[in-house]
Amino acid sequence: MTDDESRDHVVPGSDEALSTDDVRGYDFRGEFDFGELLESYATTGFQATQLAEAIDIAERMQDEDATIYLTCTSNIISSGLREVVAALIRKGYVDVLITTSGSLTEDVIKTEKPFKMGEWDADEAELRERGINRLGNIFVPSDRYVWLEEYLYDFFDDFFAEEKVRTPTEFARELGETLDDEDSVLKQAADNDVPVYCPALTDAEVGNFLYYYRQGYDSEVGIEILDDYDSLIEDGLLSDTTGLIAVGGGVPKHHAIMTNLFRGGADYVVYISTGMEGDGSLSGAPPNEAVSWGKIKEAEKNYTQIEAEATLVFPLLVAAAFE
Amino acid sequence: MTDDESRDHVVPGSDEALSTDDVRGYDFRGEFDFGELLESYATTGFQATQLAEAIDIAERMQDEDATIYLTCTSNIISSGLREVVAALIRKGYVDVLITTSGSLTEDVIKTEKPFKMGEWDADEAELRERGINRLGNIFVPSDRYVWLEEYLYDFFDDFFAEEKVRTPTEFARELGETLDDEDSVLKQAADNDVPVYCPALTDAEVGNFLYYYRQGYDSEVGIEILDDYDSLIEDGLLSDTTGLIAVGGGVPKHHAIMTNLFRGGADYVVYISTGMEGDGSLSGAPPNEAVSWGKIKEAEKNYTQIEAEATLVFPLLVAAAFE
Amino acid sequence: MTDDESRDHVVPGSDEALSTDDVRGYDFRGEFDFGELLESYATTGFQATQLAEAIDIAERMQDEDATIYLTCTSNIISSGLREVVAALIRKGYVDVLITTSGSLTEDVIKTEKPFKMGEWDADEAELRERGINRLGNIFVPSDRYVWLEEYLYDFFDDFFAEEKVRTPTEFARELGETLDDEDSVLKQAADNDVPVYCPALTDAEVGNFLYYYRQGYDSEVGIEILDDYDSLIEDGLLSDTTGLIAVGGGVPKHHAIMTNLFRGGADYVVYISTGMEGDGSLSGAPPNEAVSWGKIKEAEKNYTQIEAEATLVFPLLVAAAFE
Amino acid sequence: MTDDESRDHVVPGSDEALSTDDVRGYDFRGEFDFGELLESYATTGFQATQLAEAIDIAERMQDEDATIYLTCTSNIISSGLREVVAALIRKGYVDVLITTSGSLTEDVIKTEKPFKMGEWDADEAELRERGINRLGNIFVPSDRYVWLEEYLYDFFDDFFAEEKVRTPTEFARELGETLDDEDSVLKQAADNDVPVYCPALTDAEVGNFLYYYRQGYDSEVGIEILDDYDSLIEDGLLSDTTGLIAVGGGVPKHHAIMTNLFRGGADYVVYISTGMEGDGSLSGAPPNEAVSWGKIKEAEKNYTQIEAEATLVFPLLVAAAFE
Ligand SMILES: NC(=O)c1ccc[n+]([C@@H]2O[C@H](COP(=O)([O-])OP(=O)(O)OC[C@H]3O[C@@H](n4cnc5c(N)ncnc54)[C@H](O)[C@@H]3O)[C@@H](O)[C@H]2O)c1
Ligand SMILES: NC(=O)c1ccc[n+]([C@@H]2O[C@H](COP(=O)([O-])OP(=O)(O)OC[C@H]3O[C@@H](n4cnc5c(N)ncnc54)[C@H](O)[C@@H]3O)[C@@H](O)[C@H]2O)c1
Repeated sequence: MTDDESRDHVVPGSDEALSTDDVRGYDFRGEFDFGELLESYATTGFQATQLAEAIDIAERMQDEDATIYLTCTSNIISSGLREVVAALIRKGYVDVLITTSGSLTEDVIKTEKPFKMGEWDADEAELRERGINRLGNIFVPSDRYVWLEEYLYDFFDDFFAEEKVRTPTEFARELGETLDDEDSVLKQAADNDVPVYCPALTDAEVGNFLYYYRQGYDSEVGIEILDDYDSLIEDGLLSDTTGLIAVGGGVPKHHAIMTNLFRGGADYVVYISTGMEGDGSLSGAPPNEAVSWGKIKEAEKNYTQIEAEATLVFPLLVAAAFE
Repeated sequence: MTDDESRDHVVPGSDEALSTDDVRGYDFRGEFDFGELLESYATTGFQATQLAEAIDIAERMQDEDATIYLTCTSNIISSGLREVVAALIRKGYVDVLITTSGSLTEDVIKTEKPFKMGEWDADEAELRERGINRLGNIFVPSDRYVWLEEYLYDFFDDFFAEEKVRTPTEFARELGETLDDEDSVLKQAADNDVPVYCPALTDAEVGNFLYYYRQGYDSEVGIEILDDYDSLIEDGLLSDTTGLIAVGGGVPKHHAIMTNLFRGGADYVVYISTGMEGDGSLSGAPPNEAVSWGKIKEAEKNYTQIEAEATLVFPLLVAAAFE
Repeated sequence: MTDDESRDHVVPGSDEALSTDDVRGYDFRGEFDFGELLESYATTGFQATQLAEAIDIAERMQDEDATIYLTCTSNIISSGLREVVAALIRKGYVDVLITTSGSLTEDVIKTEKPFKMGEWDADEAELRERGINRLGNIFVPSDRYVWLEEYLYDFFDDFFAEEKVRTPTEFARELGETLDDEDSVLKQAADNDVPVYCPALTDAEVGNFLYYYRQGYDSEVGIEILDDYDSLIEDGLLSDTTGLIAVGGGVPKHHAIMTNLFRGGADYVVYISTGMEGDGSLSGAPPNEAVSWGKIKEAEKNYTQIEAEATLVFPLLVAAAFE
Repeated sequence: MTDDESRDHVVPGSDEALSTDDVRGYDFRGEFDFGELLESYATTGFQATQLAEAIDIAERMQDEDATIYLTCTSNIISSGLREVVAALIRKGYVDVLITTSGSLTEDVIKTEKPFKMGEWDADEAELRERGINRLGNIFVPSDRYVWLEEYLYDFFDDFFAEEKVRTPTEFARELGETLDDEDSVLKQAADNDVPVYCPALTDAEVGNFLYYYRQGYDSEVGIEILDDYDSLIEDGLLSDTTGLIAVGGGVPKHHAIMTNLFRGGADYVVYISTGMEGDGSLSGAPPNEAVSWGKIKEAEKNYTQIEAEATLVFPLLVAAAFE
């Protein structure tokens, strides 16, 4: 290789002027302004840009009067994001909520007894001894479940009184109606006519207490899940435009995109996820994968993903796009 | 700070002799031996050590005649691990399978039409045009679902003929019985009396076709999920010893540990996961978190986790521990 | 197992009252307040709590008048965090900066020609054709390097004029002195007497142009790295209290903790990292690992780590702790 | 939307036959065969496919008689992969090794005193008390460093005897020549004329002891790094074909691709990494990003990346491609 060839590799030059924005971070001169900070994220690069895109897309959902689906995993409700989700519903921004069963369990407990800040590293066997359940850096004393059991038995008596076989959305709505806490997700959903979908209703303590209830009180009660799936599909078919905010992955995220398939895909999509694309999982799959399936529509900048743990960014998204 | 104090920080010394093994990797002298390679993982450190521990724990599950729960996410069945899971069941190693609905969908398709190797990066809109669905680096041509629809309608006719409301385990078993492919997970499960739990049965194409079936043929069919949860709990209560291998997270993993809670925790546990602990998710929670809840027992080296994408390590675990 | 035993597993109860805070998220009632939002992160759980801890520790660094080490990887300077780092130095918050060679390269380019917003997914061969280098979702047209080459040759002439063998800190300082951009990290560091450590100075385009310079102009120039290491150690030994903010991992992070070992460990430490603990890497190692080495002191809440991509959280940390 | 339109979304069909391989996992019937297992990875999907590609590319490096660069981070040498790296060099497969300073430090210690298997979770303050340093799940008793200090002082006396200013490659080679352990990476490199590049030589205990040596014995010794960079560039320019195996990221990975830029890019590339693409880091950047820079050539399947922790997959790659 001649020296000149080598130089051409190292310093090839370029005569192309790019018309995109300059990369440029927040200017900390002058008084701090939160709105401008988040605007600067658009030109900060990496995940900051993704957050700025997400805010933009969430705003367009509202401009277009989209039917907004919010999906979240149970740990979102374990954390302080519960209050943020409840606020979004209370203010009328959410049309459909899809989640997993732990969300229902924990939202109810929190109406009466708080979860407590804890530690990531703890002696687990000792915690078990003390009756403390660990959930990341959150502690849940076991007496919460003693209380919950009583509460649910009373609720079950009413819930199954007329009909023995019910659906998860009915469960969530009627349970929400019994609650007396403005920060409750289930209460706000019930009050604002937001259906709460939760197909795997058994997979948390509500399932455990349904088991005991069937053993001890009424073995014929049941939960049927096809009715709900029909409604969720039809919610979508009736919507002119849909928007999806998926906080975490799993069944809730897939339930939302799968049922949007029936209408030719979701129109606006924001994912917040820590999932890994390279494991081929649904949780880690970025929005573009869903385009090939027709679960998300392909249009100019109508979807994005923020690779981040949700407690860090979801409140920012809400503050910027929904206030 | 004096020089001597500083030196004490940098070179403090230690008079303690550790009795643990030396760190030492595989010796590539002499003829290559697969068994010895995996043994060397025990002293290689980092995740290799975790894999070696997992092999050890899986062997102890067998020595103790444990009831073995295998849980997996749907993408495991999308991948070539489907054949590995089927082999484990065929050889009698698995007593309970817990999974999500995509697994059922895709296992049935594969009995008739293969999934194809694809690319991670693809033009998604073009794929949609061509009728190709992308799942990581796997391609699924859409004709698979045309075929599946026909197949399932016939099955539904029989399945709901006697009783209108059925359970996911019945669904999986009776569907498995119709299949004619020794590499099918559902067929092997049906043939070997291994129940297949799948509470969120709607959340995949089987759900979509149940929707169409109710629209077009019989609006009264239903899927009830409490019966299955009872059985799963009782499977556990009747077992002297339980072992759990969780490939991926999500509902299947939680379903297994939650029902093991009733019997005081699972005895032996191996997780394979790409989940992130720091997001507080169930999928990312390492086994020790489940100890505080009583979902896993605390004993000498009875649980471990391999932080890895499953296709890389699950076949090695099977080859070493179950052959 | 009797029914009662089983119940004791499922609902063990707990008579312990925990004195920690209740988990509780931001209250979106009333006018939005950024400061209160970040305060609510302390009780939101998961990584939000880590960010709140980081803010607290960064404030204590200032209260204690600690010598503050800021370390960052090169991509931080590629992104809009460059302006944030420059602001921190300009305002006098940083005493020592440790980084890698790309930071120097790119900071200089940006004084004259901006980096441009780009796309994560691009046709790489086509980009090469067009002379556009991709760095995540940032585009760097190749003409930047043509300009840089000229600029550096002039600088090298002066820099090596008196002495042929120089150090990375001298390089950074004298280069910074030539720059005319208040948002330049190197200029601010030079103006504020903040040494910039960069042991692997060759590993970026400045290295490439040093190669060409030695080929074409002066084969005897050299970069010596032991002098800098001595100074960095002594910086630490002379400090009563040290604080470390490591944005990303690699050599810069390790350089800071390793030299703090000489003084018995850093006093206050914040890591922002996407590294994986389970790979045994220095980049993924959480602060507590460094305690065993004596590189970080063990005290009440004197260190923490935020598992997050830095562009999302570093501006928040700066806004909350340094304003 | 009419029913028919909706159906077209859900079951669009496809008339395209794909010519790629069927997805199909290892067949556990018959006797287990390690070679066939790894071949089945090609059609298993997800990261298994990436490993199969890596094996293929590593074989092509050898077929083409490529100059092979191996890069690794320090923790690779901390782990049992040290013996695997030494074997590769001993057998003549490696032409250039690039690493960080911890690798040199730890390889020397291991010639005399082993590292010990430890635990991920440990009481760090107690470990410090006991003089045990933790490195992931590996323990390094502090007496190793007492021994190392003596050993290095003797070495420094000789190394700096003739010339006061030396290079990292000279350091590695002459140090390697003093060692008496066939499993030592440095010894094998010295014996087989494989240069070991390590620009940030100070950033580990060898740096610490150079500091003390300059304090106590000879303040004029120095390490110059430009000479090495010239050689590394010229190694590349003289090669017809180059192959790169990057185990982990950081400076070593970038040093290899940056110097390959001079020759128009590396020809064959395998990355093994846990890095995250979305953080814009060099460590997380997949091979295609380097194509836009001209650091890797674009050809048919000449590069790949395995997203995995190296101890799990590097021994498999070596066993399959280099035996
Ligand atoms: N092929 C599919 O993935 C597919 C198809 C149709 C429907 N669905 C539906 O999507 C929903 C969500 O899927 P899910 O609950 O099966 O799990 P998921 O794909 O969401 O994965 C859950 C978690 O498991 C872990 N994981 C997944 N794959 C892994 C791997 N290869 N290696 C290691 N860890 C891994 C990850 O931490 C991930 O976050 C389900 O209801 C499912 O039926 C999925
Ligand atoms: N034992 C040690 O790790 C050690 C000891 C002394 C000094 N140091 C110093 O610390 C500094 C930083 O270390 P580094 O530059 O060697 O790299 P690093 O440990 O910071 O790792 C860099 C990146 O490589 C990838 N990686 C690391 N280990 C991996 C694995 N097992 N599998 C897959 N990917 C992996 C990760 O993406 C990681 O972020 C260096 O200067 C080094 O000399 C390290």
